[in-house]
Amino acid sequence: MIKVIQSTQEAFKSLLHDRLNRDLLEYRDVEEKVRTVLKDVKLQGDQALIHYAQLFDQVSFKSSEDFTIHTAQMEQGFATLGSQTQEALQTAYQRIWDYHLKQKTESWQYQDASQSILGQKISAINKVGIYVPGGQASYPSSVLMNSIPAKIAGVPRILMLTPGSKTQINPLILGAAHLAGVDEIYTIGGAQAIGALAYGTASISKVDKIVGPGNKYVAEAKRQVFGMVGIDMIAGPSEVLIIADGTVNPDWVAMDLFAQAEHDQDARAMLLCPDHDYIEKVTQSIRHLMEQMPRKAIIAASLAKHGALIKVRDMAEAFVISNQIAPEHLEIMTENPEQYLPQIEHAGAIFLGAYSSEALGDYCAGPNHVLPTASTARFASPLGVYDFQKRSSVIKISEQGAKKLAGTASQLANHESLTAHSQAALMRIL
Amino acid sequence: MIKVIQSTQEAFKSLLHDRLNRDLLEYRDVEEKVRTVLKDVKLQGDQALIHYAQLFDQVSFKSSEDFTIHTAQMEQGFATLGSQTQEALQTAYQRIWDYHLKQKTESWQYQDASQSILGQKISAINKVGIYVPGGQASYPSSVLMNSIPAKIAGVPRILMLTPGSKTQINPLILGAAHLAGVDEIYTIGGAQAIGALAYGTASISKVDKIVGPGNKYVAEAKRQVFGMVGIDMIAGPSEVLIIADGTVNPDWVAMDLFAQAEHDQDARAMLLCPDHDYIEKVTQSIRHLMEQMPRKAIIAASLAKHGALIKVRDMAEAFVISNQIAPEHLEIMTENPEQYLPQIEHAGAIFLGAYSSEALGDYCAGPNHVLPTASTARFASPLGVYDFQKRSSVIKISEQGAKKLAGTASQLANHESLTAHSQAALMRIL
Repeated sequence: MIKVIQSTQEAFKSLLHDRLNRDLLEYRDVEEKVRTVLKDVKLQGDQALIHYAQLFDQVSFKSSEDFTIHTAQMEQGFATLGSQTQEALQTAYQRIWDYHLKQKTESWQYQDASQSILGQKISAINKVGIYVPGGQASYPSSVLMNSIPAKIAGVPRILMLTPGSKTQINPLILGAAHLAGVDEIYTIGGAQAIGALAYGTASISKVDKIVGPGNKYVAEAKRQVFGMVGIDMIAGPSEVLIIADGTVNPDWVAMDLFAQAEHDQDARAMLLCPDHDYIEKVTQSIRHLMEQMPRKAIIAASLAKHGALIKVRDMAEAFVISNQIAPEHLEIMTENPEQYLPQIEHAGAIFLGAYSSEALGDYCAGPNHVLPTASTARFASPLGVYDFQKRSSVIKISEQGAKKLAGTASQLANHESLTAHSQAALMRIL
Repeated sequence: MIKVIQSTQEAFKSLLHDRLNRDLLEYRDVEEKVRTVLKDVKLQGDQALIHYAQLFDQVSFKSSEDFTIHTAQMEQGFATLGSQTQEALQTAYQRIWDYHLKQKTESWQYQDASQSILGQKISAINKVGIYVPGGQASYPSSVLMNSIPAKIAGVPRILMLTPGSKTQINPLILGAAHLAGVDEIYTIGGAQAIGALAYGTASISKVDKIVGPGNKYVAEAKRQVFGMVGIDMIAGPSEVLIIADGTVNPDWVAMDLFAQAEHDQDARAMLLCPDHDYIEKVTQSIRHLMEQMPRKAIIAASLAKHGALIKVRDMAEAFVISNQIAPEHLEIMTENPEQYLPQIEHAGAIFLGAYSSEALGDYCAGPNHVLPTASTARFASPLGVYDFQKRSSVIKISEQGAKKLAGTASQLANHESLTAHSQAALMRIL
């Protein structure tokens, strides 16, 4: 069962550290294997993709046409869905679109006192590859969350790679890709998919940036190609931290912990609360609700290994601990939740108040569900339109500006022993 | 001497590829060595820093106090500078500040039709570490370029690490750090400096993000700690690509090529021009001006190895090639340079017109001189305030909003077999 911990316990720090176990981001064990796969894809292209599809996924492709899905099949996939499912996808699509539209930034420039022009040209990345995991973690919602911000940024070409085959692919994945305007799907998975996107093959274009979650082979492959292509982040296990003051229905809190825990056994679900009796109520809700859950085994294993109900001294301490954790999802299940916003330093997404279950955010509230895990919320942000835009500085110096700046540039360049820099500035104003 | 190439040559593509040699971003040869250093710093902290300072930099420290520089010494460093130098630093500081101020973004939110609130909380990263290389590449301008955007973002604590010792440190580095408001300097360099910033030691705080250039040990160390802390980018050799129509003084173009080439032998400096006679004139300028250059040896070696004067068919072809290269610096040395802006897809910084020498941008035009190299301008941007800000989604769903969204979330969750997600949404509206 889920552990109850007191923040006043002597071993609290190490107990918490043990529960969180954030050291999972290194994948040394698969490093060499992934390096070999990437090298093979780089040198042999489609042949290597066909080879590894057989070897790792037991799928036989004769040629690249066997793993290529064009837009017509995506449209057909959407058409086969029931109308309720179509509507759910469309509602989610529209809300995600509306929210992300506010993130788009435009080029800007200004003129200084010498009529020089300074600014930034902001434009879309040219080609983006979205990786969608297979099996249990093949989520249509992730297709929407990864491609809509790219579309809003104006990315002209979006490729999607996912393990499997043309005939077995989930029609919801096809339907979501159709709605989101994905240009091409290739049923290629694993490290070899990342290699194809990074180096390009005869059938799959080399892209400029790769986004989307994946298993440790995918994560390590992304780490290895980082620099050659852009990547979104190296995702760790999903996490929720709930801070409760005891005023919200304990069943809701228990179910929100389950919703995190049901992802997989590595998921982390924790509660911080100053009220001992309320923690007892949540424990009872967990016990009581667990029985009805189809994914009971996964939930129980995840809660036992990584879950914790933590009794804190007071709400202030809850936020101190929360900032140390820097959780991916932070639920503030309290009255007047906004009052705590200034105390939150690090979190991927903040859910305020009783009705803001993470589940709504995962699908259709609007904000992205691709969020910084493993305490990277200290420096990283939710996936957004900004991840698909790039900036170029624009500098147009006037003759008057060159006269004004040459002395300064020359001074500093000489101190750095960069004489050609100095002369490049000075010779223009002679 | 610098090579002259024709875009019509049969071997053009491979010649260009050979000149650019963008494969330098992998540092396999130092991978294990760096791993050992990082592990030692993680386990032994300051002791490891003292050990490696002796081993790699031949500097003896007795205790951490020997490698710690406080703000008083930075202020003193600034005071020892001549007034012209002080003014040059101040002018650069002010222009960089003014430009970057336009990049700061603020938190935003909106209310949807159901009175739910959605937005993003945008805040500064907490602790940032700036690495400043030693020796020839120890640039005061880089201190300004790395710390000013962090200051504008509101980063409360900025550490700076640079190889050397308290007594030998360049007073301009101290002066720039003083102006920029750096909180602490540690005279620690190499992979061990990156380890100290990533893991923390007794004397050096663990930071949330590390920025700044460095040699291959530093670059590989940043790659290895990436994920645990944020990093800016893995910088490759510096590059300039100049596109000329033949109307700008060829001496200016030659000197701009020199300014790039003088950095080091790995620097890349190239010209694209459709005018054969003008290329001949630039060649003569290079020959003629080379003699006066104090860094002649480095310039000549860099131009011979990586430089090229490329005769293109026409201006349109120049931009096609430029977009393939995605250069760090792109100079448009033409009449009416703005006309070409729409044709530029990828570049770190775009310098428009005869007076816009890269040298001005390197020091004091305003925009950042930390730019994406090695073709990463396809997906990466100049260092900016946005690199020191992070975002958290804010989601407050109203009771009415929960009623409206529960069906959609539940539908999609059921399709993904995530029953707890579905119930978390539904149980709130029963």
